[in-house]
Amino acid sequence: MDIQTVETHKIFNGTQTKYRHFSTTLNCDMIFSLFLPQTTEIQEISLVWWLSGLTCNDDNFSQKGQFQQYADKYKVAVAIPDTSPRGDSVADDENWDLGQGASFYLNATQDPWKQNYQMYDYLTQELPSIIYHLIPNFSGRESIMGHSMGGHGALTIGLKNPQRFAAISAFAPITNPIHTPWGNKAFTAYLGTDKNTWENWDATTLLANCSTVPPIYITQGTADNFYDVQLNEVAFLKTAETKQANVRYQKVEGYDHSYFTIATFIGEHFAFHHACLE
Amino acid sequence: MDIQTVETHKIFNGTQTKYRHFSTTLNCDMIFSLFLPQTTEIQEISLVWWLSGLTCNDDNFSQKGQFQQYADKYKVAVAIPDTSPRGDSVADDENWDLGQGASFYLNATQDPWKQNYQMYDYLTQELPSIIYHLIPNFSGRESIMGHSMGGHGALTIGLKNPQRFAAISAFAPITNPIHTPWGNKAFTAYLGTDKNTWENWDATTLLANCSTVPPIYITQGTADNFYDVQLNEVAFLKTAETKQANVRYQKVEGYDHSYFTIATFIGEHFAFHHACLE
Repeated sequence: MDIQTVETHKIFNGTQTKYRHFSTTLNCDMIFSLFLPQTTEIQEISLVWWLSGLTCNDDNFSQKGQFQQYADKYKVAVAIPDTSPRGDSVADDENWDLGQGASFYLNATQDPWKQNYQMYDYLTQELPSIIYHLIPNFSGRESIMGHSMGGHGALTIGLKNPQRFAAISAFAPITNPIHTPWGNKAFTAYLGTDKNTWENWDATTLLANCSTVPPIYITQGTADNFYDVQLNEVAFLKTAETKQANVRYQKVEGYDHSYFTIATFIGEHFAFHHACLE
Repeated sequence: MDIQTVETHKIFNGTQTKYRHFSTTLNCDMIFSLFLPQTTEIQEISLVWWLSGLTCNDDNFSQKGQFQQYADKYKVAVAIPDTSPRGDSVADDENWDLGQGASFYLNATQDPWKQNYQMYDYLTQELPSIIYHLIPNFSGRESIMGHSMGGHGALTIGLKNPQRFAAISAFAPITNPIHTPWGNKAFTAYLGTDKNTWENWDATTLLANCSTVPPIYITQGTADNFYDVQLNEVAFLKTAETKQANVRYQKVEGYDHSYFTIATFIGEHFAFHHACLE
């Protein structure tokens, strides 16, 4: 396995490192970042996954998420994958809400996307096998979080693997993409027009069908421009209530869709993950 | 006075706002950012200036400095100017260490730079007159900090105005540019070849000549690639010792020249400024 270090920086006593590797699942070179806390030899380290939103790569959370002080405090590793396959040989779209930077973290079944857009398999199989080996004294415990499209990714991957992820959290997540514009556009392209196949990648449907739901914590700003059309939570919360799932949905007054909101509440999210990973 | 709001975001209960205005000192449009903490009507707010390094603009510290939680905690406003005049009509150089993004925060005397590069006057006269009015209940107390070239800017502006600035701090500052390559190149261009004129903009010389030195706090990483050639502190510290100036110089093991270092120690710097601004 050929993993190259692109850059590494000390921060809050830990290290923030960017790696490059060739993904056999995605058929392209991929970048990811990993924060490792300063630890002793005997201390076990758990792993929190962060999935970013449309147009982002690993830098957005690494540089603007303000999470490192909490990851060091709670002694957790943080894995930050890219948001899609990348490169000149990878299918793309002229708009920012489809193609590179906009994978929706699913396995595409349609041409031309299916050649590279197998992000679900990459994130649940290939990339973990790499990252587990980069964490000294990995505890085996994992949780997952994300923002917007990445918040939806965290919900779907977490709800498809409830035994694996001890907790799920999200900032301003898409929760019901089969009924919203971004989701409709992406699912039509990646999965085709048979809407029955869409339900396997829709967080609200997965929540309805999930046998054991991990604790879920969601933060949504009231000044978020995407809220009304793309992020409406009513169906998701209604499903959670029906199932008596452990879902905490927090609306925060005046906060928008940006990383400034994430920075403000990331400490609360890490405290939540820490409690679930103990 | 025509000041336009470019964008504003709520963060840590305060607001991070980017403004645009036409500077009559610099003869061009300028951007700056201002963080305002959440306050009560009766609470007085002091002002901390942040000056960024070569190639940066206001976004680097706004987005990557991780300072907002401390600015809110201590209830200080934070002004983040750009690093030079900007625009198609402003003189520039093909290299990143001269011209736009590299003003050294001085008043240029040479063509073509002198038409726009009057950053010292802009930062000490025009921009304060704007920013004072944007701060509700401004206390009248100010301090100044910065990074690399901006660390040198904080030192020079602070040492030229010791009655005005209650404290100076810096990350990885240039301290003696008349004897280092970046400084030699920039001062030759902006100030000409008469090195006597350079001393008026050299932090170590200004420290030697300053009657009352404000408290100074400097953090320097040991893994900083620019340290040996550009940032050497020996002359500055020797001058500080001779004058018995209140200078704390902290070397931090393994940290580099990036904003990851700033993020790690910005809380300590804000605690220092807060203590001096009380």
